[in-house]
Amino acid sequence: VPPARDRIEDLYRRILAQGLDLTAEGLSGLLTDLYEACLVANAGYERTELTTQIAGKSYFAFEKPDGKISRAVNESLYEPSPEAWSTLVEALRGQDFAPLTLGEMTKAVYSLAMSFCVHIDLTRTRDQKTPGTLFEYLIGHLFASRLGVNPRNRLPVLNLDMETTLPTDYVFDLGRGQPKFHLPIKTSTRERMIQVWAHQRVLDGVYGTGRFLGTPVILAETMTRTATREVVEICLPDQWRLYQMHIAQLKRIYYLDVPAAYEPLGLIFPPIHVRPFGQFFFEAEELSA
Amino acid sequence: VPPARDRIEDLYRRILAQGLDLTAEGLSGLLTDLYEACLVANAGYERTELTTQIAGKSYFAFEKPDGKISRAVNESLYEPSPEAWSTLVEALRGQDFAPLTLGEMTKAVYSLAMSFCVHIDLTRTRDQKTPGTLFEYLIGHLFASRLGVNPRNRLPVLNLDMETTLPTDYVFDLGRGQPKFHLPIKTSTRERMIQVWAHQRVLDGVYGTGRFLGTPVILAETMTRTATREVVEICLPDQWRLYQMHIAQLKRIYYLDVPAAYEPLGLIFPPIHVRPFGQFFFEAEELSA
Repeated sequence: VPPARDRIEDLYRRILAQGLDLTAEGLSGLLTDLYEACLVANAGYERTELTTQIAGKSYFAFEKPDGKISRAVNESLYEPSPEAWSTLVEALRGQDFAPLTLGEMTKAVYSLAMSFCVHIDLTRTRDQKTPGTLFEYLIGHLFASRLGVNPRNRLPVLNLDMETTLPTDYVFDLGRGQPKFHLPIKTSTRERMIQVWAHQRVLDGVYGTGRFLGTPVILAETMTRTATREVVEICLPDQWRLYQMHIAQLKRIYYLDVPAAYEPLGLIFPPIHVRPFGQFFFEAEELSA
Repeated sequence: VPPARDRIEDLYRRILAQGLDLTAEGLSGLLTDLYEACLVANAGYERTELTTQIAGKSYFAFEKPDGKISRAVNESLYEPSPEAWSTLVEALRGQDFAPLTLGEMTKAVYSLAMSFCVHIDLTRTRDQKTPGTLFEYLIGHLFASRLGVNPRNRLPVLNLDMETTLPTDYVFDLGRGQPKFHLPIKTSTRERMIQVWAHQRVLDGVYGTGRFLGTPVILAETMTRTATREVVEICLPDQWRLYQMHIAQLKRIYYLDVPAAYEPLGLIFPPIHVRPFGQFFFEAEELSA
């Protein structure tokens, strides 16, 4: 086992050890270290072009000598730069995002997340869970730092003769009379996105409609066809409209790599606001208005 | 590749070739042949006891010489008997279930389904999809034969300026002014069961509450811990109550192997009716009353 791989394992474990303390100062540093270690580990891989029919997008994959390839990486979003990440960390510390553009913030987060995904894709077999968990901590940390509050993942239910707790995705409670965020975090959703609407519906039902702002964050919806190495995006825009009309209302759906088929959903009525994740940093206050 | 395995492959493909024509006469015979071929294929495996804390249940697994084991098989439900299956097929043909008990019908279906699951578990790696697909055809065939109508898996949506189709699980439409059944079929659900309630909610929203009777059919919720070979059931009864209160109402939840934690849900108010699958054959008419 090469030393970079050991170091990544160790950093990953230390990140997970933070549990729900996602505002912790040290967490940004651990993520920076992990990012750098992943870049070192991935430096030995070749890049191989992938084809795609998606207008305006191009993808590549990292490839091992034995021909195994990583998930698809968006060429215009992947700009590995620990400096750009550190600039974002600094901006969060001072809550001043003027020095950064929406695109720069999205790229900084995408590149960190993707460098870890690529490392796991090429060193393990069929491990979707580890990249998903790291992505949860990464986005959870950014959300927590922006809002200045740690999340919970379990809420009490007191409903007449029923007393239980409801396990949830991260929820961020800004306090009495303030908004609460419901933050499912996924590396991709495909046909499972209905779960997010359903969880939102349960929160609306148990605590009252509008108390939790549903703002899921998703990495991408890409899939690489094995035989042709073509990248497609698995999207269900018509179904999403039915879910938004009939199950619950999500406030925002943030993507690091926004799927082409979901972008127009903000332009037709009733709109579903699908946005690049960088926008969250600018609009966090506005969301609760 | 031994001949039994080839024959199973061939029968499986011919069953899938029926598509949505699940009332087809020939389908019962294909399932009988598949059942017999699986029993031949599995005859060479040893049985190994599994432990469990679940009161009143005991499980075993089939084991290959290399130590690989199948999923957990419920000892009191697994009674391999193509004759018992044929008796059920005859009862369906004549729509006369008096010669059979609820328990006999549940066992007949469980034993056929499980013999195929065991075969796939021990001849492939991590293939959950093939057993799931066969289970869908098996239950779909029994439902279609009982109701005398083929299912659809796509419904038109005409909602003002919105014209699309909604992909669904099997839905059985008994005709104008008659009930329609919404039939998700899964080998296990664990924490994904919320999807079933969410799909029911969309049907209620698009077509009107109460038009579709939600009657999911699930094989089991067992999981075998690798290290200890202990069988546990992954159940979320408190969450199910919140889903039933806040997302939608399911009419029945049928199991072949009813999980211990879900049985009491029919006894507390508001009830969730979790029943052994055999009961469906007796209560099909009553459901729509």
